[in-house]
Amino acid sequence: MKKLNASRSNKNANKSAGKARLAKRTPADKQTIEDLVAANRILYAQSVLDGYGHVSARHDTNPDRFWLSRGMAPGLVTAGDIMEFDLSGEPVDGQGRLTYAERFIHSEIYRRRSDVKAIVHSHSPAVIPFGVTSVPLRPIFHMSGFLGTGVPIFEIRETAGDTDMLVRNPALGAALALCLSDKSATLMRGHGSVAVGTSLPQAVFRAIYLEVNARLQSEAMKLGSINFLTPTEAKLAAAGNDMHVLRPWMLWKHEIAK
Amino acid sequence: MKKLNASRSNKNANKSAGKARLAKRTPADKQTIEDLVAANRILYAQSVLDGYGHVSARHDTNPDRFWLSRGMAPGLVTAGDIMEFDLSGEPVDGQGRLTYAERFIHSEIYRRRSDVKAIVHSHSPAVIPFGVTSVPLRPIFHMSGFLGTGVPIFEIRETAGDTDMLVRNPALGAALALCLSDKSATLMRGHGSVAVGTSLPQAVFRAIYLEVNARLQSEAMKLGSINFLTPTEAKLAAAGNDMHVLRPWMLWKHEIAK
Amino acid sequence: MKKLNASRSNKNANKSAGKARLAKRTPADKQTIEDLVAANRILYAQSVLDGYGHVSARHDTNPDRFWLSRGMAPGLVTAGDIMEFDLSGEPVDGQGRLTYAERFIHSEIYRRRSDVKAIVHSHSPAVIPFGVTSVPLRPIFHMSGFLGTGVPIFEIRETAGDTDMLVRNPALGAALALCLSDKSATLMRGHGSVAVGTSLPQAVFRAIYLEVNARLQSEAMKLGSINFLTPTEAKLAAAGNDMHVLRPWMLWKHEIAK
Amino acid sequence: MKKLNASRSNKNANKSAGKARLAKRTPADKQTIEDLVAANRILYAQSVLDGYGHVSARHDTNPDRFWLSRGMAPGLVTAGDIMEFDLSGEPVDGQGRLTYAERFIHSEIYRRRSDVKAIVHSHSPAVIPFGVTSVPLRPIFHMSGFLGTGVPIFEIRETAGDTDMLVRNPALGAALALCLSDKSATLMRGHGSVAVGTSLPQAVFRAIYLEVNARLQSEAMKLGSINFLTPTEAKLAAAGNDMHVLRPWMLWKHEIAK
Repeated sequence: MKKLNASRSNKNANKSAGKARLAKRTPADKQTIEDLVAANRILYAQSVLDGYGHVSARHDTNPDRFWLSRGMAPGLVTAGDIMEFDLSGEPVDGQGRLTYAERFIHSEIYRRRSDVKAIVHSHSPAVIPFGVTSVPLRPIFHMSGFLGTGVPIFEIRETAGDTDMLVRNPALGAALALCLSDKSATLMRGHGSVAVGTSLPQAVFRAIYLEVNARLQSEAMKLGSINFLTPTEAKLAAAGNDMHVLRPWMLWKHEIAK
Repeated sequence: MKKLNASRSNKNANKSAGKARLAKRTPADKQTIEDLVAANRILYAQSVLDGYGHVSARHDTNPDRFWLSRGMAPGLVTAGDIMEFDLSGEPVDGQGRLTYAERFIHSEIYRRRSDVKAIVHSHSPAVIPFGVTSVPLRPIFHMSGFLGTGVPIFEIRETAGDTDMLVRNPALGAALALCLSDKSATLMRGHGSVAVGTSLPQAVFRAIYLEVNARLQSEAMKLGSINFLTPTEAKLAAAGNDMHVLRPWMLWKHEIAK
Repeated sequence: MKKLNASRSNKNANKSAGKARLAKRTPADKQTIEDLVAANRILYAQSVLDGYGHVSARHDTNPDRFWLSRGMAPGLVTAGDIMEFDLSGEPVDGQGRLTYAERFIHSEIYRRRSDVKAIVHSHSPAVIPFGVTSVPLRPIFHMSGFLGTGVPIFEIRETAGDTDMLVRNPALGAALALCLSDKSATLMRGHGSVAVGTSLPQAVFRAIYLEVNARLQSEAMKLGSINFLTPTEAKLAAAGNDMHVLRPWMLWKHEIAK
Repeated sequence: MKKLNASRSNKNANKSAGKARLAKRTPADKQTIEDLVAANRILYAQSVLDGYGHVSARHDTNPDRFWLSRGMAPGLVTAGDIMEFDLSGEPVDGQGRLTYAERFIHSEIYRRRSDVKAIVHSHSPAVIPFGVTSVPLRPIFHMSGFLGTGVPIFEIRETAGDTDMLVRNPALGAALALCLSDKSATLMRGHGSVAVGTSLPQAVFRAIYLEVNARLQSEAMKLGSINFLTPTEAKLAAAGNDMHVLRPWMLWKHEIAK
């Protein structure tokens, strides 16, 4: 009898400890987490992410927190893999799980850009060449109007000399965020790119059409000089697209449900 | 008892109102609507449409009307989403549903081209570069003989200056239809393209092989000067293809049924 | 009673007529027909054929006959669609079914090339540019050693002036066969290509690697001057590949069975 | 009774002979064989292998032995197809099964490179152009840091004059291993490439990103001069990737299980 009781109170002790740990976490926003899982799988299905890269969403009620998967392939992420992080880039309740080495891309951009609610970091293929040559990425059609204000390139060598190319600490994250400035996306030389948005659907849309624009611009350059959107056309087109960002999002969600 | 009766007559009133509304609609052509749903899904499956773009069919008995989906991703369209429009580009019985901002592409072409029974508007990727450079799209093989009479480019800037690139009103639709003239297809600078046909299978065929021709021509240009079809070859080949347009249509329908 | 008998003898008469018609046909070779159906579906699955193109096999016991599908999309062909043709390009027992307008490609090559047991006619995309420019297709790696003896281009204009580009009669078929000569494949300007083999697996292998070689050669040309296989290397590599042609065939058959 | 006994002892004799043959084999490592089957299927699913090419793993307890499929398409390999080979490139217990003509690629590399535990030989498409032109393959982004020490090209003509291009004997395998030297990968002119690793996941990772790098470098060259990783960046990036090689491996295994 005693043993059984002891066992019970041990269980309670464990539960209490668990609650204490959990107490630090902000109440989860079920819809945001569901959308973030969808975003992971959409970006994999659309070939923007492969076994690497990640996507995050800012907490809906606590702007000093954001959601990001534990360290794993985005195409396999489920709700249970989503962890909460603070703006230092550290997990609120890590439970010893692996985290992405580059979580500081997210924390430092959220810190500097209060308008940003979602961030995608990818190595999507057509974008890579524009990060290692001197051709500026520019909006070739209305779908990529969001590129009209310019797409900076983050050169990690300027900040840190020779590295393994990863944004492994808050200082590198801050340098990247400084480079991104108020833009929608930034390229990372010899590495990949970052797209940000005021919502998960918008950030996903931008990550996908950043890749599409790179592919089309590269093809068009072979034909001759390109008549790009003017800054005004780009701005107006971007505003128009933002109103219909849920149209492809519904399709992309449908595709991953198959 | 009275209440119940009142309720009943209210219902009847609603029904009558509904009938009055419906009375304006032309009796639906089941086969056209079925084919239009198939066309939406085929064009998505063949990567001519992504989350955007649209395809319409002229009404079979009322040439002043046409069918077009409500505003949504073409790959998800079902029969219930097809709406009837008149040649002003407005829905006959909108029921508050979202419509495509660019429905005037369809209304204004149907108004000017009595031979046209179906229209595809897409952003298919290989075509975009030909809309923003100075290389004319020409028929590289017999499958695209329908391009032999030329492929004009619609420059929206000439009509309306800086815009969001969308054909948002009848005037822009009319300018586009004027540019298309009597041709099979027109490019839209910084935006996409339009293909028309005397039937849904033909319009779909043209939208697909417009994209194929653009891809092949772009590849061939890297190898050197291209020996295109002569105008006569193009005309004869187009006539030949028109006789067998149901062969791929059966295949494409089979693919979307999987 | 009489009526019933009459009806019976009518049935018999019909059967006899059927038998008379069938009597002209050579006994079907079940394995060849099964392989030919597989070849149709493999070439579609491997994107060598789309809604158009065709593949045939010579009759196993009667060299003056060959098998070819009725006029339809190759990806949908079943055993019941396979028809028998003689070397004039006409069906032995047509039963009013549609035939391919270009069946003379097959009949005229079988007539002139007793070594050929199977023929593929396709519009596979990467090959088209090599038919309309002046760059010779040459073996870039061992898999395409069969191209080492040269790949002629059939210019239909030289034979018939402006046409709809199709090999619509025996004379055009004969001109094409003359152009092919003793080679493994020929290009058709502004149209497509033909690959032949001593077996269905070999003809299918050649049609697939003709396309692969075109894609690789086009890519390599962008990098600079290409070190092609020497004629001896090509010949030896082709002989080596012929010994293992069933290895990919087993895989391709497995893929279409999914 | 006698007959039955005789039959029994015959069976026993056969079993003994079987055991004697089997006695030469090293006890199978179930995990290695399972991973090797996965590697075959992953490389096919990722389009690095088609109907040809092969992947091997060194025996976990006997470094003078390695595992390799019998001669067949990699995409169809199952555990029962894996055979044991010694460093002369001959099967330990062949049982008359077909073997790959180029098994000497594996035996001779394992003989010279004690650090190598797994080898991939492929004809992956984007790599072929770099083997037949004079453009060196270099690391364009962090994922391909393993290319930073250089990618030699094996020119079989220098060793053996005109051949069928295959590494058909130990001498050719030794020449290839000499060319590979201490590098991660080598190209084979007019043929394909080899990637090696200290584990199956690493060798598969390298074969896949060798292909990705070739595709990206080819695209980037069209845009202009490329800012490649420095040797130090490449080295550091490679070390970083090696720590996370199981992340995509889990994804790739998941994909083939579908």
